[in-house]
Amino acid sequence: MEKFNRNLSVFQSCDALYSEADVVIFSVPMDATCSFKAGTRFAGPAIRNESIGIEWYSPYFDMDLKDYKTCDIGDLEIPMGDVEKDLDIISQTTSEMLKDNKKTVMIGGEHLVTYGTIREYVKKYPDLCIIHFDAHTDLREEFLGRELSHATVLRKCYDMLDTGTLYQFGIRSGDKEEFVWAKNHIHQRLFDTIGIDKCVDELKDRPVYITIDLDVLDPSLFPGTGTPEAGGITYKELEDAILTMRGLNNIVGCDIVELSPDYDTSRVSSQVAAKVLREMVLLLHYCNEKNK
Amino acid sequence: MEKFNRNLSVFQSCDALYSEADVVIFSVPMDATCSFKAGTRFAGPAIRNESIGIEWYSPYFDMDLKDYKTCDIGDLEIPMGDVEKDLDIISQTTSEMLKDNKKTVMIGGEHLVTYGTIREYVKKYPDLCIIHFDAHTDLREEFLGRELSHATVLRKCYDMLDTGTLYQFGIRSGDKEEFVWAKNHIHQRLFDTIGIDKCVDELKDRPVYITIDLDVLDPSLFPGTGTPEAGGITYKELEDAILTMRGLNNIVGCDIVELSPDYDTSRVSSQVAAKVLREMVLLLHYCNEKNK
Amino acid sequence: MEKFNRNLSVFQSCDALYSEADVVIFSVPMDATCSFKAGTRFAGPAIRNESIGIEWYSPYFDMDLKDYKTCDIGDLEIPMGDVEKDLDIISQTTSEMLKDNKKTVMIGGEHLVTYGTIREYVKKYPDLCIIHFDAHTDLREEFLGRELSHATVLRKCYDMLDTGTLYQFGIRSGDKEEFVWAKNHIHQRLFDTIGIDKCVDELKDRPVYITIDLDVLDPSLFPGTGTPEAGGITYKELEDAILTMRGLNNIVGCDIVELSPDYDTSRVSSQVAAKVLREMVLLLHYCNEKNK
Amino acid sequence: MEKFNRNLSVFQSCDALYSEADVVIFSVPMDATCSFKAGTRFAGPAIRNESIGIEWYSPYFDMDLKDYKTCDIGDLEIPMGDVEKDLDIISQTTSEMLKDNKKTVMIGGEHLVTYGTIREYVKKYPDLCIIHFDAHTDLREEFLGRELSHATVLRKCYDMLDTGTLYQFGIRSGDKEEFVWAKNHIHQRLFDTIGIDKCVDELKDRPVYITIDLDVLDPSLFPGTGTPEAGGITYKELEDAILTMRGLNNIVGCDIVELSPDYDTSRVSSQVAAKVLREMVLLLHYCNEKNK
Amino acid sequence: MEKFNRNLSVFQSCDALYSEADVVIFSVPMDATCSFKAGTRFAGPAIRNESIGIEWYSPYFDMDLKDYKTCDIGDLEIPMGDVEKDLDIISQTTSEMLKDNKKTVMIGGEHLVTYGTIREYVKKYPDLCIIHFDAHTDLREEFLGRELSHATVLRKCYDMLDTGTLYQFGIRSGDKEEFVWAKNHIHQRLFDTIGIDKCVDELKDRPVYITIDLDVLDPSLFPGTGTPEAGGITYKELEDAILTMRGLNNIVGCDIVELSPDYDTSRVSSQVAAKVLREMVLLLHYCNEKNK
Amino acid sequence: MEKFNRNLSVFQSCDALYSEADVVIFSVPMDATCSFKAGTRFAGPAIRNESIGIEWYSPYFDMDLKDYKTCDIGDLEIPMGDVEKDLDIISQTTSEMLKDNKKTVMIGGEHLVTYGTIREYVKKYPDLCIIHFDAHTDLREEFLGRELSHATVLRKCYDMLDTGTLYQFGIRSGDKEEFVWAKNHIHQRLFDTIGIDKCVDELKDRPVYITIDLDVLDPSLFPGTGTPEAGGITYKELEDAILTMRGLNNIVGCDIVELSPDYDTSRVSSQVAAKVLREMVLLLHYCNEKNK
Repeated sequence: MEKFNRNLSVFQSCDALYSEADVVIFSVPMDATCSFKAGTRFAGPAIRNESIGIEWYSPYFDMDLKDYKTCDIGDLEIPMGDVEKDLDIISQTTSEMLKDNKKTVMIGGEHLVTYGTIREYVKKYPDLCIIHFDAHTDLREEFLGRELSHATVLRKCYDMLDTGTLYQFGIRSGDKEEFVWAKNHIHQRLFDTIGIDKCVDELKDRPVYITIDLDVLDPSLFPGTGTPEAGGITYKELEDAILTMRGLNNIVGCDIVELSPDYDTSRVSSQVAAKVLREMVLLLHYCNEKNK
Repeated sequence: MEKFNRNLSVFQSCDALYSEADVVIFSVPMDATCSFKAGTRFAGPAIRNESIGIEWYSPYFDMDLKDYKTCDIGDLEIPMGDVEKDLDIISQTTSEMLKDNKKTVMIGGEHLVTYGTIREYVKKYPDLCIIHFDAHTDLREEFLGRELSHATVLRKCYDMLDTGTLYQFGIRSGDKEEFVWAKNHIHQRLFDTIGIDKCVDELKDRPVYITIDLDVLDPSLFPGTGTPEAGGITYKELEDAILTMRGLNNIVGCDIVELSPDYDTSRVSSQVAAKVLREMVLLLHYCNEKNK
Repeated sequence: MEKFNRNLSVFQSCDALYSEADVVIFSVPMDATCSFKAGTRFAGPAIRNESIGIEWYSPYFDMDLKDYKTCDIGDLEIPMGDVEKDLDIISQTTSEMLKDNKKTVMIGGEHLVTYGTIREYVKKYPDLCIIHFDAHTDLREEFLGRELSHATVLRKCYDMLDTGTLYQFGIRSGDKEEFVWAKNHIHQRLFDTIGIDKCVDELKDRPVYITIDLDVLDPSLFPGTGTPEAGGITYKELEDAILTMRGLNNIVGCDIVELSPDYDTSRVSSQVAAKVLREMVLLLHYCNEKNK
Repeated sequence: MEKFNRNLSVFQSCDALYSEADVVIFSVPMDATCSFKAGTRFAGPAIRNESIGIEWYSPYFDMDLKDYKTCDIGDLEIPMGDVEKDLDIISQTTSEMLKDNKKTVMIGGEHLVTYGTIREYVKKYPDLCIIHFDAHTDLREEFLGRELSHATVLRKCYDMLDTGTLYQFGIRSGDKEEFVWAKNHIHQRLFDTIGIDKCVDELKDRPVYITIDLDVLDPSLFPGTGTPEAGGITYKELEDAILTMRGLNNIVGCDIVELSPDYDTSRVSSQVAAKVLREMVLLLHYCNEKNK
Repeated sequence: MEKFNRNLSVFQSCDALYSEADVVIFSVPMDATCSFKAGTRFAGPAIRNESIGIEWYSPYFDMDLKDYKTCDIGDLEIPMGDVEKDLDIISQTTSEMLKDNKKTVMIGGEHLVTYGTIREYVKKYPDLCIIHFDAHTDLREEFLGRELSHATVLRKCYDMLDTGTLYQFGIRSGDKEEFVWAKNHIHQRLFDTIGIDKCVDELKDRPVYITIDLDVLDPSLFPGTGTPEAGGITYKELEDAILTMRGLNNIVGCDIVELSPDYDTSRVSSQVAAKVLREMVLLLHYCNEKNK
Repeated sequence: MEKFNRNLSVFQSCDALYSEADVVIFSVPMDATCSFKAGTRFAGPAIRNESIGIEWYSPYFDMDLKDYKTCDIGDLEIPMGDVEKDLDIISQTTSEMLKDNKKTVMIGGEHLVTYGTIREYVKKYPDLCIIHFDAHTDLREEFLGRELSHATVLRKCYDMLDTGTLYQFGIRSGDKEEFVWAKNHIHQRLFDTIGIDKCVDELKDRPVYITIDLDVLDPSLFPGTGTPEAGGITYKELEDAILTMRGLNNIVGCDIVELSPDYDTSRVSSQVAAKVLREMVLLLHYCNEKNK
């Protein structure tokens, strides 16, 4: 036993050892395919630093982070500028954790990180469904000549789903073709989160992965992102949607992506992301409790 | 034909030649009479730069910029510190374009630029009506000894209208005298945009000019302006008002003014302005389509 | 009489002499116990500087600052890093002003300044009640080993109230223990201001002190504060609550606290604070008028 | 006598009454003719606020502000967008103060303010000479069609000098024509302040006005200005020049101009300006002492 | 001929047509392999926008941009996240221009862009030499598993040089191995630019490409870059080096890289970059003149 | 052994265990007595985050951090607003480490933290000497009624020194009394670091503690501090002083203080601090090597 410990930097109250944790947080400093402003690589440290400013107790959930076992392993080490390798590292990490029956909470990075982790989730949960909050459709087949990009990621995830079950909320930007495709293939809700209760009813007992592109929030609250898009939802709407998803019995993992902290000199975006992360971690634990 | 072209910088997808365009965008780097924070002179380049981050397709209108002919001629060249000369240059430009049957979309600069353009519009459309979105009344008779100022501009425009038809929405700041005057002379809606549908009904077939001072938006979303004023409307409210104005059959021109990009280090204000501009350009084309 | 006067810096239109004023503004540059980001010490000058950007007339109240006598004495001089001494200086100032039958409007600084002033108010008004707007409960018994802190301040104020009457609105962050204690002792409204009308009915003729921690506002509008907390109220909700409080017949004083201007490079937070201050000053004068 | 005084906001320790002061400070919030980034109108309040962070004692001069009588009357009230009127107000103020045998220290605003004050100085001192520190020549005959502009101001001042004696230091930007003209008419030192000692020798007993455009400093230290220009002098070089000017026996007035505080979010530019101002005020008092 | 032209955005005074130009500017919005802070993709537009704030005349060169033919074609269109493709596009562009006997001035982007262009230069000039200004060695053999990266770029360029002639100046950061390798293979000057005159003597008549990583400048002047490194050179030192290189008789091309404008809210870094660019463009024309 | 480790956040390459380390880093988030801008509490995390952007190898020392054993234990946990308690925690930590024969490198926080650690150092080294780099004298006897303050700290340290040996460099701000006192009691060098070599000669074999207030650097390079003061030293001057101190045979500890990261939106100040820290850690190891 050391008299003084080397400095830990974990998300507020999430200092359980990996072996004892039910939920594991990791972040991915990858922003290679961002089409406009980059900088999401710094999201992990920013959220950890700002988490000191929020409480470990949530009056929304009436639950307390310190009553649950969560481990935070920090940033994955990835090479810059090599998308395929980055995705492989995400996949290996996810695979390892799923083997250990952990639920993962991934912090992006750009949205393409979701592809790396879903790739493993569908192996473990062949009937996986996805709930997706975002300002952008992310449903392009390719973007500027690339198949794997933050603008195609949900389409590529969809292609891996046996169930074909993808729910989108808050969407307000995309190519015309994406909107047309969406109408024929998925559940897409424009502009807000109305219908989340119906979605929860339908996916009640199925394995669900939740991916939150934080730019679903209005840029008034969340300027710190690469492609902010006016007309977004409020924090209260997002919080309500999260609380509604307590009705799901089998949430298997989640991520929050696209915080680009340096574009918000006030650091409010990072603090909002920290609060969303707290609620999502609690949601996973809430769901775990139900199944005990 | 040149092998490589000199660098164009136009608003997203608005690269038609002047001669072939139905709608023409120009910006005016004038901020001489701003009473508080200046900097609106940089709005044009800021909006053009940020327009890269938004899509050319609008899911609100279900219309696509690239299906229409719009030309963007950039900043007018004006001398700094000479208000009368600046206004003359705006008037000459407008006059030329109206002669060519273009619809103009002007980017301020401070709100006084509207005076320079309206001066020509009333010549072509003697029965012109104005719809005005703003936080501030802008109805003073004079301001600190000046008749022409960003605080008097709508009063001076009103004085040129034969119809006396001026609708204001979102107003929440001004002198007591301005509010009293407004009650007796114009349609003034405080705080929000309720009544825009009735206004559209009344002006249905009349020539309408729309002037949007972007500070009508709440400063939470739009900090990048000289005199932000809390209690403003949301983006969704403004978008709804714009969509409602599709009911107008004869929109003849419009402007968006008072973006001061340097006061918003996150650049969100510029991106919001770019989105409003896209919607306004599409509104003009929508209206053109109806009349074909 | 001097030919030129030394530069005054008072809140917009509040330049009455102390002796002739009904309402007196002072600010306290104290931020010693802030647990996260500090900087509230600069709030006073920031609000005075930004007040130039707002009007002296309020269309909400239909009242004009220049029709009333308000004095602004600026920052109190306090030593940094000596909490007890700082509080003593606040108490002495308040005591003096209450003796002169002034109503005080205090600008924080951190929220602990309220303790210094309430200490004197309860002497003059033994049946004092408090209405409190905040994101945070501030009801801890001690915080990191300290009894007097910005996280305990309302609890310490409550302990001094004979009436035990404390209303809280907008609360959304705190320790679990605080929420439990609140349920048994005070009126606590989570997340919004619903119920303010009932509160006004109940406190109608009783002496009421109003303390507004500006972080009750959503961080989208008010990023310039030490511990912003997503999910707050809008400016319109706060304005409505202020207007509702016109129903109170005996408002004896108020404060607005926790503006940390340097965390908002756009200066919008300071301007919002200035507008809230204008409305609160008018509310005190409104209440005075009723009692003439 | 009032129990509490209305809030004064004067430059550090410069709180003498006008009637008893030897030196008088005033600021001019004028930035109408700035060709690029504006915002110098906020320089006065910014310098006063930041002056709290510097000491009243100068180890360079071994002199203390509190041992001398200096009055600070704050911003002149000027209308925005009316250059001629603004200049008249400056001239009237200067004239009044010269009549009272005050030495004036003017804070810009843009450089054109110097024209307004020199206009009066040449009346009182027909043999006036000017020492000028700047990155820019400011010697154009006209700029974008205007005779009076921040780019022509020193030429217009030169034209009023009977002596034709103008020394420039630190110059590194201008039109070719300006450099050619300078060679034939004035003493122009490029890039640095070498030769200031010789200049002081030559102007020893003549009435000298000193005008410092703060952009003579390198933008590394002084980013907060409208047209920063790399390759400037260091603070130490400027301080040395100021100390050298103690050799002048008849400094009659001075100004520092072109601080645009909002372009420097760190506020260092404002603090540098405050320090330069302290040294210049002490220089005037030093010169006064010699003549007693 | 159009009555109004679509908006051009070229570097100050560089509006010649491609066919008539001697020197051609292009920018590359690529920042995929940045190991720390990204954002260099926005350098091109930032430099063009800020170039309005500098003069077209250089008192250092006594030359005027408007006396020479320079074309600016703006940003190359490249896909994000695909390094190889990006480099190919740079190479094709360079190749085309070299065929047309243009001299190229490339604006990065990250430093790896230099690899794309040097690849073509060595084809045309087998005896090419490189002069390199930088804080970082950029001499790694591979970086985090990648051969092509902004940390390996000069090593990869060196490997293509028949001459093996690479001069580095201002270097102050790197791996120990890089410094050891440098000692045995190239001319490396640590910390400053001493020896540039000797280098010019040695390369007098040989074809020279100059690559300037702007982070060679001290971060005091140039904070807007991904990996600022204290202890850099001043602007004056860089300007002196540029002037010294007038001694070269065969400069064939150059680039300036690694401006990341969003990390400098004051925009001074962009203005410094614009000034360096002006001087480099003039240097190329100066060299052209000598050879006429 | 855990499969994944909880996230460490240590200064670049300083991840040795406490028990095996020769040098130990800790940071103190204390800024209670700052007289102007606060925020130094965030220095520790800021320096750790930015250290990723610098190399572990120093070309100045030709030494590599990864060849030495350094432990970084992060922020001490201290209560806000209780100066005495904070100092006690610093003293206890220092005492423990001195007992274990570690050399400490403390990151402030405000300068008063030095008092807490020196208190213990003088116990272990009764003949301790101090070398102090700073813009400010910090020699007041009391400041605004407080004995312990960041403005009195070196005076209080001096009072504890048996040797009375205190060297100051770079000083350029203070009260007149402080400068007078300094002349009679200590070695004080104004404005620069000239004489550091002589100082090193004199203290060669004596136990020396080095305290670096980073505001000794010019604010051009180091804006991120509470009371920046123009006219400071360059990075190269500081680096040279550090290298000169390799001549000392018994450096026993050091600190770097007064980084206030939020006042520098470019984050350059944090990166400069990280580089200074690297050099200081290497200096301690260098000194250790000599004594082996």
